Amino acid sequence: MIDAPFGELAVGHRRVSRGRTITETDVVNFCMLTGNWLELHSNVEFAKSTLYGQRLVQGGLVFVVVNALLGFDPELIEAFYGVDRLRFVKPTFIGDTLYARTEVLRLADRGERHGVATLLLEGINQRREVVLRCEFSLLVRKERLAVAPPVPLEQA
Amino acid sequence: MIDAPFGELAVGHRRVSRGRTITETDVVNFCMLTGNWLELHSNVEFAKSTLYGQRLVQGGLVFVVVNALLGFDPELIEAFYGVDRLRFVKPTFIGDTLYARTEVLRLADRGERHGVATLLLEGINQRREVVLRCEFSLLVRKERLAVAPPVPLEQA
Amino acid sequence: MIDAPFGELAVGHRRVSRGRTITETDVVNFCMLTGNWLELHSNVEFAKSTLYGQRLVQGGLVFVVVNALLGFDPELIEAFYGVDRLRFVKPTFIGDTLYARTEVLRLADRGERHGVATLLLEGINQRREVVLRCEFSLLVRKERLAVAPPVPLEQA
Amino acid sequence: MIDAPFGELAVGHRRVSRGRTITETDVVNFCMLTGNWLELHSNVEFAKSTLYGQRLVQGGLVFVVVNALLGFDPELIEAFYGVDRLRFVKPTFIGDTLYARTEVLRLADRGERHGVATLLLEGINQRREVVLRCEFSLLVRKERLAVAPPVPLEQA
Amino acid sequence: MIDAPFGELAVGHRRVSRGRTITETDVVNFCMLTGNWLELHSNVEFAKSTLYGQRLVQGGLVFVVVNALLGFDPELIEAFYGVDRLRFVKPTFIGDTLYARTEVLRLADRGERHGVATLLLEGINQRREVVLRCEFSLLVRKERLAVAPPVPLEQA
Amino acid sequence: MIDAPFGELAVGHRRVSRGRTITETDVVNFCMLTGNWLELHSNVEFAKSTLYGQRLVQGGLVFVVVNALLGFDPELIEAFYGVDRLRFVKPTFIGDTLYARTEVLRLADRGERHGVATLLLEGINQRREVVLRCEFSLLVRKERLAVAPPVPLEQA
Repeated sequence: MIDAPFGELAVGHRRVSRGRTITETDVVNFCMLTGNWLELHSNVEFAKSTLYGQRLVQGGLVFVVVNALLGFDPELIEAFYGVDRLRFVKPTFIGDTLYARTEVLRLADRGERHGVATLLLEGINQRREVVLRCEFSLLVRKERLAVAPPVPLEQA
Repeated sequence: MIDAPFGELAVGHRRVSRGRTITETDVVNFCMLTGNWLELHSNVEFAKSTLYGQRLVQGGLVFVVVNALLGFDPELIEAFYGVDRLRFVKPTFIGDTLYARTEVLRLADRGERHGVATLLLEGINQRREVVLRCEFSLLVRKERLAVAPPVPLEQA
Repeated sequence: MIDAPFGELAVGHRRVSRGRTITETDVVNFCMLTGNWLELHSNVEFAKSTLYGQRLVQGGLVFVVVNALLGFDPELIEAFYGVDRLRFVKPTFIGDTLYARTEVLRLADRGERHGVATLLLEGINQRREVVLRCEFSLLVRKERLAVAPPVPLEQA
Repeated sequence: MIDAPFGELAVGHRRVSRGRTITETDVVNFCMLTGNWLELHSNVEFAKSTLYGQRLVQGGLVFVVVNALLGFDPELIEAFYGVDRLRFVKPTFIGDTLYARTEVLRLADRGERHGVATLLLEGINQRREVVLRCEFSLLVRKERLAVAPPVPLEQA
Repeated sequence: MIDAPFGELAVGHRRVSRGRTITETDVVNFCMLTGNWLELHSNVEFAKSTLYGQRLVQGGLVFVVVNALLGFDPELIEAFYGVDRLRFVKPTFIGDTLYARTEVLRLADRGERHGVATLLLEGINQRREVVLRCEFSLLVRKERLAVAPPVPLEQA
Repeated sequence: MIDAPFGELAVGHRRVSRGRTITETDVVNFCMLTGNWLELHSNVEFAKSTLYGQRLVQGGLVFVVVNALLGFDPELIEAFYGVDRLRFVKPTFIGDTLYARTEVLRLADRGERHGVATLLLEGINQRREVVLRCEFSLLVRKERLAVAPPVPLEQA
């Protein structure tokens, strides 16, 4: 979502990513990765008795998937800076498809080589609902880093 | 880390969790889950040429693991509320062991049945370095929810 | 399910765990972990021609899940002792939710510091059927082991 | 599918393997393993708008599964030699069950100890459609390699 | 390990399986599958302070792997019958290689079509130590079940 | 590696991808995915007795990883066409880092909208050895397909 050096970014610029459907496999994998098997996410019978009547997708999974959909070009981005005001606005269910939408909120110069870009990052589903919202900050280069091909073309 | 109803919580109360070692398997699993294969996390040769000389553990993985170490008692916690000021303070390497440390920062009453507890949540490694810091807010019940055994003891 | 030192346990004491739904993902994961791809568990067409008309959940998966639902408090339990009379009483299908139920069967003193507690461990599903039954023995401490916080609170 | 030493193989000999159902879990696992999250395989909403109206199973997954169904007896096969004319003839959908079918196409002597057997390898589904076809070559021993038991029976 | 119909089995017959090395990946996968993250298996720092100075492989993982190494021919075996006297005799560490060794202990006729074969099943490592021992019973057919090829050779 | 419409491709054009280190986790995952646990890939003790003295990475895993490193832009590529002359030239070991290198070999017009591009695809490791070689053919569009944002920017 950062597709240009710091000096070429403009407040208000918006982008939408490709989508990814959250499957039952993803939900089980996230229970497995974290070791957190709250019945809201892992017990169908329990989930029937709750407000939504079905298992919810974990907020943490929504966050890391939306983050990854954002993309991250190492030639432009020096480092991940931080996250603020992360809120889960609506539930995500198994079978929902998530997209990342970004808007450049603030641009702060940080010297000769970098600036901090703060994005409004939203997770949006196929019903056009915003499910997650946060401010996501990245340290962006002022010049694209030329990465030499790791295995030279002619010699390998 | 929330081990009592809202009314019994006190600002300043601190806790430390059990620990979990972050393995190469975890790092590969997180590349797989997110689809983000940045060479900083997945290419040993590339990582040798960077500041730390080795692969870094993904910030997102540190966040979800520290979160999960925090624990989450569904009899006491109604919902996850949000995250603020999430910062990655130091790098985590493969083989590091992470613990979650919490301190109650603020307690905000929200009516008859709930309050919002805001914790300082820190991820700490075996070298006693703080690697991650954020403010983590939870909606906490004023009375423990008595969960009936799902399959009655005598009849099953 | 062992929630007290050996001296406080009583024959006949019963407990029920939280539940976990066995998903298709779990069944595929268990084929993957063991390398055992019997068509009864992994081939939908083959399974249609069998007695139950659908894939069965592996007995080994039922066993390790029910075991894990049992919980295991390292401050109280010194070691896992053994399993006897393990029988699979009824089939488990994809989508079934399993609970562990225990009853203390026998308590055998083993000197100053430990005793062996033998539990009747049953796996029960959402139809209140017992699907698995075994006798599960644990070496239980007579005094709770105080585990010092691994990363001291004040110094870290 | 190579079930005899090289000298006992005959052109035209055919075999069919056991079957394996390709689940949603397998498709997600293959996205994870490869890091390739093309929406054709991973986005249900996108897939609805395509020719088949649903997610397709990845060709690479069909290939490695059909390959593995083929089996590989290390006492008879010295090495994997190569693959030619690999074509994906029909789509595979989540829930399809795949079988490997082989026919010995060519047998080429390679000296005293080995020969190369080239098989027509086809992936077939439960609708009796050929979905994948290739020529698969293996270096086959002229004498079965007697593998001594790794842990001697009497001494262990 | 059951390689013949019931009538051809003989008490005292012994077999050894192929081997499988238990990797750190397997140990993490088993923590993930079960949701049991006891620090003895998942925290390197904690493990240093224990008797063995390193993480232990979970008993449940040893059991299901040794079981799977045993093999299970569906043309000969009708069903899994039960497990008795399961004991974990010695610890397994990451990097150990396990083999299954069986000896036919008892053969009990069960009518016209089946018998129960009880095997002494042992898990053995590369140091020739027995790490696990149990009695494993299977319902074995008196006549091999001829399984018709699922996708007829000539028609597909 | 196809980064332009068919008409702009030129025979002889070469590219190198980013790299990915093949970990023990990847090798175990591929055993798990395929169900193929040949001791050459999964038994450290057995592997010590072979020519290379260590476990080999599976050819199929090398193939699918190199393939995925190739990238696949759905706006330019209509379909995967086929693979020819796939050969495994040198072994890959755990810890090796793989890159994909491509060279356009042939361009065949296929009517108004597409052409078939055949690439020499090579897998190269950090020692600059070619480990895998094949001819990889893709159906490439003559005009880039404009994919409308799935969730309209202004309405969502």
